[in-house]
Amino acid sequence: MITSTDIQATHDRIRPHIHRTPILSNETINSLIGASIYFKCENFQKTGSFKTRGAFNAVLQITALNKPSSFVTHSAGNHAQAVAYAAAKFGIPSYVVMPETAPEIKKEAVRTYGAKVVECAPTMIAREDSVKKIIEKTGATFIHPFDDDMVISGQATAAKELFEDSEQYLDCIVVPISGGGLISGASLATHYFSPSTLIYGAEPQGAPDALHSFQTGTVQIGGAHKSIADGLLAYLSERTLNHIRNHVKDIFLVSEEEIIEAMKLVWERMKIIIEPSSAVPLAAIIKRKDLFAGQKVGIIISGGNVDLSSLIFRNS
Amino acid sequence: MITSTDIQATHDRIRPHIHRTPILSNETINSLIGASIYFKCENFQKTGSFKTRGAFNAVLQITALNKPSSFVTHSAGNHAQAVAYAAAKFGIPSYVVMPETAPEIKKEAVRTYGAKVVECAPTMIAREDSVKKIIEKTGATFIHPFDDDMVISGQATAAKELFEDSEQYLDCIVVPISGGGLISGASLATHYFSPSTLIYGAEPQGAPDALHSFQTGTVQIGGAHKSIADGLLAYLSERTLNHIRNHVKDIFLVSEEEIIEAMKLVWERMKIIIEPSSAVPLAAIIKRKDLFAGQKVGIIISGGNVDLSSLIFRNS
Repeated sequence: MITSTDIQATHDRIRPHIHRTPILSNETINSLIGASIYFKCENFQKTGSFKTRGAFNAVLQITALNKPSSFVTHSAGNHAQAVAYAAAKFGIPSYVVMPETAPEIKKEAVRTYGAKVVECAPTMIAREDSVKKIIEKTGATFIHPFDDDMVISGQATAAKELFEDSEQYLDCIVVPISGGGLISGASLATHYFSPSTLIYGAEPQGAPDALHSFQTGTVQIGGAHKSIADGLLAYLSERTLNHIRNHVKDIFLVSEEEIIEAMKLVWERMKIIIEPSSAVPLAAIIKRKDLFAGQKVGIIISGGNVDLSSLIFRNS
Repeated sequence: MITSTDIQATHDRIRPHIHRTPILSNETINSLIGASIYFKCENFQKTGSFKTRGAFNAVLQITALNKPSSFVTHSAGNHAQAVAYAAAKFGIPSYVVMPETAPEIKKEAVRTYGAKVVECAPTMIAREDSVKKIIEKTGATFIHPFDDDMVISGQATAAKELFEDSEQYLDCIVVPISGGGLISGASLATHYFSPSTLIYGAEPQGAPDALHSFQTGTVQIGGAHKSIADGLLAYLSERTLNHIRNHVKDIFLVSEEEIIEAMKLVWERMKIIIEPSSAVPLAAIIKRKDLFAGQKVGIIISGGNVDLSSLIFRNS
């Protein structure tokens, strides 16, 4: 059970190591929706995503007890970079298991932060197997991407800052869902620090497992998940589903076209780079304008790690 | 002669109509260069560029004397949007002469801000002719993109805010040069508000007229200017050359490749969208690391208006 004191202590613990990211608004987007949207910009966070919060909290809590020989995790993306970065800050080696199909640029980013990348087949079983082998061989300490109270408590600080800095009472917040670490943290932060704010989740139609788990009450695994929102393809754990069932009002699905349109709107109008996963909550709000009209709505922009190498800047 | 009191009065006049844009820094870019760079983010300014400052100052000063029937200007880009926006805020119609070769998306943006777009052949003579005809026909008041003290005084407020908000004494600032309005304003702001800061200009190798004008002491016109930095293709006026000759220490040229690399670095690391013209100062600093090592350097990011319609976001 994560208490409000835990989240406060987490925030104090990680504060020296993270950015207090800004909250931005945009007139054009507000008029389009007929609501006031407050974007908590974790794309500006160290390593480019909110994952740095949970990773630092885990590394700091573990290290305070007993400095481990190394850390290990599995992730295709932002959590990998976050763990590699946080471990390196304390001079601790790290291993990151990544699917061999992950883009070379993402593997390279993880190596840049000093981790050893271990490739495996692109399945969850292969990932977990590889982690197990590394632990047996090296004694590395595992940091799960989301099924971990230290990680969830770290992610909670993003929503906590959103409430503290938006200078407005927020009627609701909308959070993207993958494994559920961010929305579990946001659920707890809302419950403790802004209890009458409603919390909604959003995920791609191409990976609707969180909605199905939410509706059925049991973790739904599998289906051939596919979306441009490549940060939102994991499935929940019992722990994160519990937080969602206890606190989240509803979960919205959005199409690939709606995600791309929302992402373009943010790039074009706000002049900030967000990854496709981060566009999912805005896409949901645009789709459900009726529900959000006239409200003050917070969004956590989860990250800004986009492979720009595929973008071509044409010479005029 | 623009005095420090003029710039202060300009700032007070336009303050309610513009954003006080943030100053950002980035650890990775700082380590790469071995200097501390302070980015004044005018890409977050209303209409997406610093031009809104000069346009509002001109519109406000002119309107205070005598409300004109309409405004007119010529511009292929950011000044067009700024004049259209500022005029519309006071309910005054505007005409914008644009080369028929300008991208449809830029014409559309100007129309969105309420201006009437008048197309002409893509030469400076055709532009000026079209403006003259509109003035004869409608009595519209002309706002020049840079050869105008009201406009220059408005642009000066960007550098003024950079000095006020960077919380560090800046050893130098680096500013992109096109017609010279921004660097003239920055020169005056530096002279009055941070007189021992050095000021440098930067422009594309493909449009090196400002360097040649600076070296020869007379305005150099022409040459087949071509660069991805499509905001930097104009040439100086006597007025702007004078400011540059009086205050600017040196002007650096950068190649197309250097511009694109610097732009990608900012997109990728800072997660903000800047237009190619805005990458020119950073490209110059990277090229001349030797000169800037160990220094505190300010850069004005002039704008963020990029045609994103040519970018393809691939579905994973």
